[in-house]
Amino acid sequence: MNLNFSDRMSNIKASEIRELLKLTEQPEIISFAGGLPAPELFPKEKIGEVAKEVLFNEGAFALQYTTTEGFAPLRKIIVEERMAPSGVKCDISNIMLTNGSQQGLEFSAKLFVNKGDVIICESPSYLGAINAFKAYEPKFIEISMDKDGMIIEELEKAIKENDNVKMIYTIPDFQNPSGITMSLERRKRLAALAAKYEIPVIEDSPYGELRYDNEKLPAVKAFDESGFVINLGTFSKTFCPGLRLGWVVADTKILQKYILIKQGADLQCNTLSQVIAARYMEKYSLDEHIASLIKVYKKRRDLMIDSMKTYFPKEVKFTIPEGGLFTWVELREDLDAKAIMEDALKEKVAYVPGGSFFPNGGKKNFFRLNYSNMNEEKIVEGIKRLGSVLDKYYCNCNSFEETAAVKED
Amino acid sequence: MNLNFSDRMSNIKASEIRELLKLTEQPEIISFAGGLPAPELFPKEKIGEVAKEVLFNEGAFALQYTTTEGFAPLRKIIVEERMAPSGVKCDISNIMLTNGSQQGLEFSAKLFVNKGDVIICESPSYLGAINAFKAYEPKFIEISMDKDGMIIEELEKAIKENDNVKMIYTIPDFQNPSGITMSLERRKRLAALAAKYEIPVIEDSPYGELRYDNEKLPAVKAFDESGFVINLGTFSKTFCPGLRLGWVVADTKILQKYILIKQGADLQCNTLSQVIAARYMEKYSLDEHIASLIKVYKKRRDLMIDSMKTYFPKEVKFTIPEGGLFTWVELREDLDAKAIMEDALKEKVAYVPGGSFFPNGGKKNFFRLNYSNMNEEKIVEGIKRLGSVLDKYYCNCNSFEETAAVKED
Repeated sequence: MNLNFSDRMSNIKASEIRELLKLTEQPEIISFAGGLPAPELFPKEKIGEVAKEVLFNEGAFALQYTTTEGFAPLRKIIVEERMAPSGVKCDISNIMLTNGSQQGLEFSAKLFVNKGDVIICESPSYLGAINAFKAYEPKFIEISMDKDGMIIEELEKAIKENDNVKMIYTIPDFQNPSGITMSLERRKRLAALAAKYEIPVIEDSPYGELRYDNEKLPAVKAFDESGFVINLGTFSKTFCPGLRLGWVVADTKILQKYILIKQGADLQCNTLSQVIAARYMEKYSLDEHIASLIKVYKKRRDLMIDSMKTYFPKEVKFTIPEGGLFTWVELREDLDAKAIMEDALKEKVAYVPGGSFFPNGGKKNFFRLNYSNMNEEKIVEGIKRLGSVLDKYYCNCNSFEETAAVKED
Repeated sequence: MNLNFSDRMSNIKASEIRELLKLTEQPEIISFAGGLPAPELFPKEKIGEVAKEVLFNEGAFALQYTTTEGFAPLRKIIVEERMAPSGVKCDISNIMLTNGSQQGLEFSAKLFVNKGDVIICESPSYLGAINAFKAYEPKFIEISMDKDGMIIEELEKAIKENDNVKMIYTIPDFQNPSGITMSLERRKRLAALAAKYEIPVIEDSPYGELRYDNEKLPAVKAFDESGFVINLGTFSKTFCPGLRLGWVVADTKILQKYILIKQGADLQCNTLSQVIAARYMEKYSLDEHIASLIKVYKKRRDLMIDSMKTYFPKEVKFTIPEGGLFTWVELREDLDAKAIMEDALKEKVAYVPGGSFFPNGGKKNFFRLNYSNMNEEKIVEGIKRLGSVLDKYYCNCNSFEETAAVKED
């Protein structure tokens, strides 16, 4: 069988997270891999009652084809209840629903990027976005972050030095994987840069509403006067990912193009889920539900950070995120987090090695930990086990270090 | 605002059907446009009960992320109950779920087609597929059909004369838009050609199970010994489109690539819909539901055909499909179905002008009629009105003919 795939397929590799998820599905593994919300917090009975009502009362509509843009009452809820509190002024003509924000990411590259064009992103960045973008054969320029997010001077320099920058990708809140939040001042400057250079900024904000400390910051889109900022939102982390409901917020001239792409891609989002989500949110307060998530996730974050302080070797660095689902661990530069993962799996604990989060590669001494999906007991036990695995690499036992350091991908 | 979209966007135009659907949403319009199933036949209460049970009993799973391939029990049902009766031998490792078969179409072009490559399709062909493929900047070669489907000699000639044919697209059962069914012999020959020339055949079969006359034919995939035939199925026409559940059946080496594309595109299909569909089909017989659809649709088809015979000018040609949702009308060569549509809309009746179903353009004297979505009274009334609109163009009143003939898109 002599198969002849398109050129773009040579860029599309299996996502390390997805492949790992399979390994870590065994119930005895304490998994800090993945980015799954806590399933015990889904309001499943409430959704069950609403689902039945929807199907009995408006089933003929909810099971039929609908418009590509999506169900208007749900888009109205997004405008009023999700975007307005982030400082984004828009109306339903600016909103199209997508299958989670992942689909918005894929569409963005399809819309803006020709082969060989440059996409600028944070270093590191969300590997699901990197993989989606790669299908359009771009070059990536990675911009360093400090504690306030992407360094804007470095960003502007990259724009000036490359005449084919077609898209700037950012996750301003509790970034995946680093946990870093972009400061208010930099959000303003990023929106201004988008306008000045007429380059679209794709603002991906799946975790923005899951903030545990300090005040919520407005979205980058809130400072967008030019129309060049495109905001991607989702209910995956604040409601349930299985419904696959995300959205794009964009200037109508841009949104029109997203709608055309969506028509070709899959016609529309799941009608039933759209109606269930809207009816649920008309009946119950999603803000209250999010408040209950924050309570649990904040506790889990605190516990993970405290446990890392207790059980990790002192030399290991990690971020303390103000919200979201992840902390990012930096090992000594000669260590390979992927090789160490094999030891971790022997101890029945899992994380995501950080290499794939750097689109241009070359960094191996990082890993990402998720704290939303494991209960408190497992968080302490898992970090304790991970601590003893790491201890071997920090105890001056050279034989262990070499094992990890020489291992190549 | 100086917007700079990717080159592929110049190929992506608004679908005529989708835009028309908006016009035809007014309840006073009798619409034979669109391809919507009859919403009054959705088993909405049964689905409502199942949905509630799923959310109460297994909601934590049904609302969470799942695998990209899809929910294994649903894939098993597809293998045993949908593919086996079509003569296709496969197991769940050959099945990936998609958001309707539309997504399978888009993925197929992404997987196989580079810019400038040739896609061969029937003439005319499904405009949603044509639009999805166009994003990958192919050339199209259209192959004529007779009453037995695509003419295989013409197909083989096109393959021989072009060294960059990357995909053959066919809708063998009750083709959209023509209503034509490919004969058994041609199915075998098409599978053999795919093997001989090592070119993937994308077999799109959304209506195959909605047969009103004669015996069901095996899928082209049933004769596939080489692995080059890829079958796309869907529950959109046999269950409900709003759940967005379709599937790809392919050799595992090919399916692995579809899975990678799906990961980047939107991670996975809606988990809740997958579980609801599986539990519904474990509890109730989908075959029985399909039998009840066939009863209604057969009656509507008969009524539409009879009404056309009664009310259309005798010179107008149309197909009598053995199943599916559409009949295809051919007007006198100098007439423009798009211009006549304006007259039809004044009479509150709508169809889809046929021009967009020819990827290389140039044909204006066709239109497509759907008979699944209107009740019997409306079918008779709508065809009657359409008949009087057409009468004006066939009554030797030259002034009318000229109006329609000179109108350009």
